[in-house]
Amino acid sequence: MPVAELLPITDVSAAACCAPLTKEAIDPAGAETVARTLKALADPTRVRIVSIVASHVGQEACVCDLQGPLGLSQPTVSHHLKVLMEAGFLTRSKRGTWAYYALVPGSLDKIADLLRTV
Amino acid sequence: MPVAELLPITDVSAAACCAPLTKEAIDPAGAETVARTLKALADPTRVRIVSIVASHVGQEACVCDLQGPLGLSQPTVSHHLKVLMEAGFLTRSKRGTWAYYALVPGSLDKIADLLRTV
Repeated sequence: MPVAELLPITDVSAAACCAPLTKEAIDPAGAETVARTLKALADPTRVRIVSIVASHVGQEACVCDLQGPLGLSQPTVSHHLKVLMEAGFLTRSKRGTWAYYALVPGSLDKIADLLRTV
Repeated sequence: MPVAELLPITDVSAAACCAPLTKEAIDPAGAETVARTLKALADPTRVRIVSIVASHVGQEACVCDLQGPLGLSQPTVSHHLKVLMEAGFLTRSKRGTWAYYALVPGSLDKIADLLRTV
């Protein structure tokens, strides 16, 4: 995953600091980080954005691919995109007129690994 | 998982209605359900409770195992336990003086399955 290696992955990588929740009791600092990361996802619009981007070809979508399906104003979509970028789920790149948002490789899997029991 | 089959699993089982987020764009109703389930977990105290219970022998812990490590009042702990039970992560049973909380088998794995990309 060369892209992930070049990017400053912050919160999500911190969330992966810990063993799976079911393996040993997480410490308070680890729990804060995990909760903050989950909170960034725990919104219906942000779940949809991540799903649209992640299911798109190359796990990347133009902002123009989001506004139509979401049916929300551009500032509202921008707010949610900012939360997801700050939490380390998405990155943004500008090409021509449009901004493109890509899923940070491994960002969702790190949370999945924290939650799995098997 | 015979216990899970006997229990009325509500929200969490609904959250598992959907294909992984990365496979196809989730619909608005599915996104609401997933967000609601994630929100129940997206709190540092609730992450710790789930982790303490899930890492305990038999994935079950007495309320007396929680209060000390959490360092919170009994009503506060009860509030968080209620949220986790309503979201389908924990079940409660009373034996003697104490209430015991058990992880609903599969409840965390269902979310992990939604988030995984591989």
